Amino acid sequence: MNPDELKSLLHSLKEGTIEVGEALDRLRSLPFEDLGHTNVDHHRGLRHGFPEVIFGAGKSVGQIEGIIAALLDKGNNVLVTRVEGEKALAVKKAFPAAIYHSDSRCLTIEQRPVKIVGKGKILVVSAGTSDLPVASEAALTARFMGNDVEQLFDVGVAGIHRLLARTKLLYSAAVIIVVAGMEGALPSVVAGLAGKPVIGVPTSVGYGASFGGLSALLGMLNSCAGGVTVVNIDNGFGAGYAASLMNRS
Amino acid sequence: MNPDELKSLLHSLKEGTIEVGEALDRLRSLPFEDLGHTNVDHHRGLRHGFPEVIFGAGKSVGQIEGIIAALLDKGNNVLVTRVEGEKALAVKKAFPAAIYHSDSRCLTIEQRPVKIVGKGKILVVSAGTSDLPVASEAALTARFMGNDVEQLFDVGVAGIHRLLARTKLLYSAAVIIVVAGMEGALPSVVAGLAGKPVIGVPTSVGYGASFGGLSALLGMLNSCAGGVTVVNIDNGFGAGYAASLMNRS
Amino acid sequence: MNPDELKSLLHSLKEGTIEVGEALDRLRSLPFEDLGHTNVDHHRGLRHGFPEVIFGAGKSVGQIEGIIAALLDKGNNVLVTRVEGEKALAVKKAFPAAIYHSDSRCLTIEQRPVKIVGKGKILVVSAGTSDLPVASEAALTARFMGNDVEQLFDVGVAGIHRLLARTKLLYSAAVIIVVAGMEGALPSVVAGLAGKPVIGVPTSVGYGASFGGLSALLGMLNSCAGGVTVVNIDNGFGAGYAASLMNRS
Amino acid sequence: MNPDELKSLLHSLKEGTIEVGEALDRLRSLPFEDLGHTNVDHHRGLRHGFPEVIFGAGKSVGQIEGIIAALLDKGNNVLVTRVEGEKALAVKKAFPAAIYHSDSRCLTIEQRPVKIVGKGKILVVSAGTSDLPVASEAALTARFMGNDVEQLFDVGVAGIHRLLARTKLLYSAAVIIVVAGMEGALPSVVAGLAGKPVIGVPTSVGYGASFGGLSALLGMLNSCAGGVTVVNIDNGFGAGYAASLMNRS
Amino acid sequence: MNPDELKSLLHSLKEGTIEVGEALDRLRSLPFEDLGHTNVDHHRGLRHGFPEVIFGAGKSVGQIEGIIAALLDKGNNVLVTRVEGEKALAVKKAFPAAIYHSDSRCLTIEQRPVKIVGKGKILVVSAGTSDLPVASEAALTARFMGNDVEQLFDVGVAGIHRLLARTKLLYSAAVIIVVAGMEGALPSVVAGLAGKPVIGVPTSVGYGASFGGLSALLGMLNSCAGGVTVVNIDNGFGAGYAASLMNRS
Amino acid sequence: MNPDELKSLLHSLKEGTIEVGEALDRLRSLPFEDLGHTNVDHHRGLRHGFPEVIFGAGKSVGQIEGIIAALLDKGNNVLVTRVEGEKALAVKKAFPAAIYHSDSRCLTIEQRPVKIVGKGKILVVSAGTSDLPVASEAALTARFMGNDVEQLFDVGVAGIHRLLARTKLLYSAAVIIVVAGMEGALPSVVAGLAGKPVIGVPTSVGYGASFGGLSALLGMLNSCAGGVTVVNIDNGFGAGYAASLMNRS
Amino acid sequence: MNPDELKSLLHSLKEGTIEVGEALDRLRSLPFEDLGHTNVDHHRGLRHGFPEVIFGAGKSVGQIEGIIAALLDKGNNVLVTRVEGEKALAVKKAFPAAIYHSDSRCLTIEQRPVKIVGKGKILVVSAGTSDLPVASEAALTARFMGNDVEQLFDVGVAGIHRLLARTKLLYSAAVIIVVAGMEGALPSVVAGLAGKPVIGVPTSVGYGASFGGLSALLGMLNSCAGGVTVVNIDNGFGAGYAASLMNRS
Amino acid sequence: MNPDELKSLLHSLKEGTIEVGEALDRLRSLPFEDLGHTNVDHHRGLRHGFPEVIFGAGKSVGQIEGIIAALLDKGNNVLVTRVEGEKALAVKKAFPAAIYHSDSRCLTIEQRPVKIVGKGKILVVSAGTSDLPVASEAALTARFMGNDVEQLFDVGVAGIHRLLARTKLLYSAAVIIVVAGMEGALPSVVAGLAGKPVIGVPTSVGYGASFGGLSALLGMLNSCAGGVTVVNIDNGFGAGYAASLMNRS
Repeated sequence: MNPDELKSLLHSLKEGTIEVGEALDRLRSLPFEDLGHTNVDHHRGLRHGFPEVIFGAGKSVGQIEGIIAALLDKGNNVLVTRVEGEKALAVKKAFPAAIYHSDSRCLTIEQRPVKIVGKGKILVVSAGTSDLPVASEAALTARFMGNDVEQLFDVGVAGIHRLLARTKLLYSAAVIIVVAGMEGALPSVVAGLAGKPVIGVPTSVGYGASFGGLSALLGMLNSCAGGVTVVNIDNGFGAGYAASLMNRS
Repeated sequence: MNPDELKSLLHSLKEGTIEVGEALDRLRSLPFEDLGHTNVDHHRGLRHGFPEVIFGAGKSVGQIEGIIAALLDKGNNVLVTRVEGEKALAVKKAFPAAIYHSDSRCLTIEQRPVKIVGKGKILVVSAGTSDLPVASEAALTARFMGNDVEQLFDVGVAGIHRLLARTKLLYSAAVIIVVAGMEGALPSVVAGLAGKPVIGVPTSVGYGASFGGLSALLGMLNSCAGGVTVVNIDNGFGAGYAASLMNRS
Repeated sequence: MNPDELKSLLHSLKEGTIEVGEALDRLRSLPFEDLGHTNVDHHRGLRHGFPEVIFGAGKSVGQIEGIIAALLDKGNNVLVTRVEGEKALAVKKAFPAAIYHSDSRCLTIEQRPVKIVGKGKILVVSAGTSDLPVASEAALTARFMGNDVEQLFDVGVAGIHRLLARTKLLYSAAVIIVVAGMEGALPSVVAGLAGKPVIGVPTSVGYGASFGGLSALLGMLNSCAGGVTVVNIDNGFGAGYAASLMNRS
Repeated sequence: MNPDELKSLLHSLKEGTIEVGEALDRLRSLPFEDLGHTNVDHHRGLRHGFPEVIFGAGKSVGQIEGIIAALLDKGNNVLVTRVEGEKALAVKKAFPAAIYHSDSRCLTIEQRPVKIVGKGKILVVSAGTSDLPVASEAALTARFMGNDVEQLFDVGVAGIHRLLARTKLLYSAAVIIVVAGMEGALPSVVAGLAGKPVIGVPTSVGYGASFGGLSALLGMLNSCAGGVTVVNIDNGFGAGYAASLMNRS
Repeated sequence: MNPDELKSLLHSLKEGTIEVGEALDRLRSLPFEDLGHTNVDHHRGLRHGFPEVIFGAGKSVGQIEGIIAALLDKGNNVLVTRVEGEKALAVKKAFPAAIYHSDSRCLTIEQRPVKIVGKGKILVVSAGTSDLPVASEAALTARFMGNDVEQLFDVGVAGIHRLLARTKLLYSAAVIIVVAGMEGALPSVVAGLAGKPVIGVPTSVGYGASFGGLSALLGMLNSCAGGVTVVNIDNGFGAGYAASLMNRS
Repeated sequence: MNPDELKSLLHSLKEGTIEVGEALDRLRSLPFEDLGHTNVDHHRGLRHGFPEVIFGAGKSVGQIEGIIAALLDKGNNVLVTRVEGEKALAVKKAFPAAIYHSDSRCLTIEQRPVKIVGKGKILVVSAGTSDLPVASEAALTARFMGNDVEQLFDVGVAGIHRLLARTKLLYSAAVIIVVAGMEGALPSVVAGLAGKPVIGVPTSVGYGASFGGLSALLGMLNSCAGGVTVVNIDNGFGAGYAASLMNRS
Repeated sequence: MNPDELKSLLHSLKEGTIEVGEALDRLRSLPFEDLGHTNVDHHRGLRHGFPEVIFGAGKSVGQIEGIIAALLDKGNNVLVTRVEGEKALAVKKAFPAAIYHSDSRCLTIEQRPVKIVGKGKILVVSAGTSDLPVASEAALTARFMGNDVEQLFDVGVAGIHRLLARTKLLYSAAVIIVVAGMEGALPSVVAGLAGKPVIGVPTSVGYGASFGGLSALLGMLNSCAGGVTVVNIDNGFGAGYAASLMNRS
Repeated sequence: MNPDELKSLLHSLKEGTIEVGEALDRLRSLPFEDLGHTNVDHHRGLRHGFPEVIFGAGKSVGQIEGIIAALLDKGNNVLVTRVEGEKALAVKKAFPAAIYHSDSRCLTIEQRPVKIVGKGKILVVSAGTSDLPVASEAALTARFMGNDVEQLFDVGVAGIHRLLARTKLLYSAAVIIVVAGMEGALPSVVAGLAGKPVIGVPTSVGYGASFGGLSALLGMLNSCAGGVTVVNIDNGFGAGYAASLMNRS
């Protein structure tokens, strides 16, 4: 809408050819920031049914409790990621309904049951035991976002047969999250087998020249298999969130 | 060993022409791939309807022509990526039906019309004019894989209003590919607005400390917005392929 | 402005308590995207008197000529950066008024004289002869943006007295751009002497472990002197633009 | 040799108590800093009204107290940056007038009120809660240097509307400091909107491939928006200092 | 499905208690790993006599004890790598036969004596005292895998004569593991002298620009001497394991 | 000084034609390499039957021809690596017996047939067509060093079944060289299957964030499978040479 | 085998008590280091008067005490570098003559006074207070090696006049060690002024993008001034040692 | 202001033609460099007898000729580094006395014979043939600076005996420059043997993970041998210049 159109709209209103309501409607969808963006956010909330998520790292118990209280008030379920054990204990005192998931360092409060809104199953595959915290964060996030989630453990590429024995499970998924450290090769193999969207999550597991997950990250970005996309190192939450969007799109 | 051979082996055992020991030996070393894996590939082809794709870089005209001929024989459509102009000209002489897309450096032959198999629209968003070759490769790949594709140009974050004016278009997409060089911030903004799976494609565009796309790559991996996953630098094909899988899952 | 205020504004217009012009003025500064952004851009243009700039690298002669023609039509002066010699010659044929500055690889057309709008002098200091193209780009950009610009050459830190002999010149500047490759130490020394905003521009000059300007970039970022900020490697235009904003603020 | 000594030397020459040769010798080896540079420093102090600043990290409580005492003696205000809580407590015992700002880990003593010497307002914008310590250090530094400072919180690019709702605030500033971790995209967006000098401060906030702030740093250096200059990772003090110079130039 | 179960299935078919169709179905979905890969693993175990190895880092005492118990049950010897002292003490309480090797941070239980299966001698050469933990891990691993192992200490390249005095020892080895930090030059010199396969193990020993072993790693990868291959930084176990394979091949 | 000369010197002493002092002087400064090291080299030559190898890159045609002539004179076979086509043509004119292997850019002259001295088979596995030049260099080097060599092509991890169908071939090798670019995952899978020494050769094949082979290199160094050691990027010769030593040890 | 033993062997041959064959055997395997290299070491010790130095980091109190005892026995002075306070206390109990230098974390025992053997003065220049431990290690090392050493503090490039006031001191030195963190620019300025060999020591002082001293290291390596050579990050000992060699050569 | 002008000013004061105030004003702003620093430069020139050196890279033939003419005018010898062959030919036409050294890409004009001013011999050691251009640049620079220079070729660490045979040569040098690519280990070995100042020059020779000389650079910086200092990659001139200063100090 350019100035002339705006002028013409205002003239029409002044001259009575349109009513205030009609002008209001046309203008209401215009300035997105004060009017619109809250709407956009509301729309998205309604459309996806996604609960609010709190990134717990670097926040005090007091801050976390404040945000939780506000969210519960609006009737939301609550997911807090990256909460260390002691902090979780403190929060549980204030909110006894909270459940702490120590494997994924997440804390959840579900005032209303999570409704399955995803179309298919999200499968979370992990290579080694040390990848489990990240894999669990991804799985819990996806579940919390309303998806049917399954996990497959300990299927690293050095013992490829363990993975090959589960190809049916791979085929049954709508989206696959693959969590791996060290050389980060598992997403390539899974994507080659499955023909489904694969989200690679490099982990900081490894020693020496793994350089805090850089090696796995580069491995996944350079995957020779089609269909692999990648999130940040150790970012299980990000993978679970992206998978939820894919499972809905 | 295909299913028929397996059946025949079992019949021989049942009929007594071979002994349990011999059958055991032959089954013990059963080359699982001869049974299962060729099938897997066929299944995948049938299931997805994905045509074969040839990565043209580093292949000679002769090699490319050979693969094209083989693919056409099986009735496939053909997509060749990363073909420089001269090479494309030579290939076109041998296959006059080939179309060269100079903007994306791709060459296609469609013996049967591409059938739309994707559920929704794939939107390819790009930041600057120099991101266009990569964006075009992504768009052409997605189209060739049977998707409805739309492109949105020149909406970098430094002029954020150009993007904001297109939010409806963002909402209308099932999957969004965002191609950007320099600081690689566009996927974050798009994902914040759209609530759809966003595939970030960092490009090697930029100078100085862009370090061949590393800067954009890191920017996208560290996105503060949910739903962003990333492919390799300049990998438009990879993004188009992954988006196609997401649009089907 | 919330919906109620908007409604009330529209009612006032309809009821005749305000005129179209007044409503227009209040609305004009409202919806920034369709209405507003052209305005914002116009406002900024009017406020700063900044002409449009074309980044020439990676654009064809045809593209550049098209944008130039459009800009001239609106009465603008034109600056094209990163234009190689041959391209510049071609453009000059189409626009004989164009002047090519081979030292900075820039091309300018001034249909109306550049008006000095900057409050003080911008000084561009460079360390070695090989830093000159970048320094010249910075100087020409700042001049074109309406600033009084002076250049100081060949005052590297290995011969510190050459710089010390010019401290008066340093004091006389409002903003100082310092262009240096190799170890990138010059901005620290200048900032220590001058007490003025210093913009460091690392250049890719050097060999061996200069790593394409990374060494100079890190040197400037880690400056032990107060008041140094840094732009991208070889980004003379960016420094000239930022200095222009500082000289006006 | 201070100016009085110099004057006295010249008088001796004029009065004949020393010869030209002797004066020449004494002047030839004239330690320029005793004359010129202390003066320069004094001049700068007077010109800018900048108080002395102590970088607290790596200094013992005793060392800090010694410098504070010396500065107070000369009538200066005192700012100590990077002081951890315990150290601050100890220092406060010795100087009860000291105020500790735990959010920015700074300690200040103002024996005379800070006089506003900056021409306009310095706005400090930050993306996330974890960027707050750095943003606070920048704001406190700028305030201490005699500027009117305002802060804008929690306006990351993933929720771009929160920033867009504050464009008036952006326009009202003379210099804008933008503090952001993760992908570091906020300075680009702010600079695109505001048309003011923007100082980007990358923070080490983030995980995985943020590599201690490298990702945000590269993002800001590669900004596609004009007017962005960058300081070191987490260097809030440096940004506040540079902004003070810009607000005066 | 283990070989006995398979045999039993085939007998049932031969004896007519099941039909070809049923046998086919059960074999068609034969989870190849249950048949083949356990076998492969068993085969490999029998062929190489390699005991199982537990990577101790990041595993709890409880987890380690569980795996040890299972391995002992099958009659295996046990090697646990990367076990810190306290953890080792706890495990020793549960398994008094365990021996803790504090120099290599390894823990071993040998229920049956290690049988020498390697053809020649494996020599472990180390440069400095701080390389000893890694060298010891390599030596212990190789010994545990059934090799004759010898160690040569403190023969860094800065005192080349110490190494030259031991050339006979170098010639006597079948495989040489060379452990070195800092510039990582020792494998080059050893390989130049010995004409045997040399496995370089870079260590994270050093300070400053050793960058956690990167410097030594690059040094070894760029060795100008033939016959040097490299494993990950500090990966003594990997070197010992690879040397064992080479000593058998 | 060769053994004969030494013997002659000792005889002269015994026979009294020289004195102890003179013998002492000659022995004291005995250039140990003339005695020992040339011998060592000769010994090694005899022991391994390794012909001399010329690294062709960066050498002129004249230099290469000179070294070839000298080697042929001593009765050696000759291998020149990294020879571009034109250079090879020139050399072939001077030495018509030379054979140029364009796939591996190597040139060989065999005056006496290569004798198989390796105990087992060396298998060279490669992932993609673009890895072929490096794989060929490795294969040719190993063959030239007197080994039975076999090659396995195009078995990347994205189509894992192609590799699984060849497990027998993997088991039949004494040493396996695995050449792969992109994510460099193939050596992990091969080592997991084969239980043989695996030498990983990362290639610079790939685009974007492969960073000239760094990604593949890191992938191989961080292999989760036992028995993998690594050589430099694209260093097929180094792998072939190391494999030859392993196949003999 | 020392020269006397060699002489005796030759006499035996001449006198007929041994045969040529036996002499040949003993000489052929002549362990050259026993003859030459121990001598070399002794020669070097005598020539340079350098005492032995113990790198204390990573050594236990027991190990350090053992080496000290051995060195004292031979009449040497002792320098131990990188000794933390507690360890030093323990060592001092065993050797009451030991002096601990807490600023440089060094411990020395001088049984005989250090004799000045250096020809000129070694000057150690440092930029900031946090560079002092490294500078002190360099100074103490050089003093211990028999040099006249002077230190110049707190002359960073941001306040260049402090350095310029000391040019006479710079001219008076034979070798200059310059210790600096952050941007590492000081060696360039010093070398430009002094015309003497300058050894740059980058320190890990700094924050943000100093990357543990990498920034200062690159700055020094890329110095635009002639005569600057560089040692490892924080390597004060190495600089002191190299300067001692230069001051003697 | 040169000494004569200063003298004249003082005379005027003494003679009463100017007043103290005026003299004070003129002296207060005394541009110290005009007095002192030009002198310093002259002094340095006289003291060291160093001719001027032109860095030829990036300079046009015209620029080089201009500087040469100016230098010859003052009676200097001339050294131009980094001159490619064609450029050298052109310069030789203008200055027939010029000699082009193609191995080091340097051009020299000696109007007066180079006088030996260095105290001892500078030895330039290089590892491989591809290090020769850098080694030659170092040797030529040192010779031109008035030193006795000797070169030692092809003594890489993989054939350590070639170096050991030349220990006498090593001992005979006052300063040793060691030029090496690949793993850069040679300086460590040389410094361990020689007990002389060793300047390491990493070269960009190598392939794969040599990363343009980074590998050799890190190797040298992390040298475990005392007395090694390092210059930039391929910086033969810098090494020759630093060695000249050391040979004089």
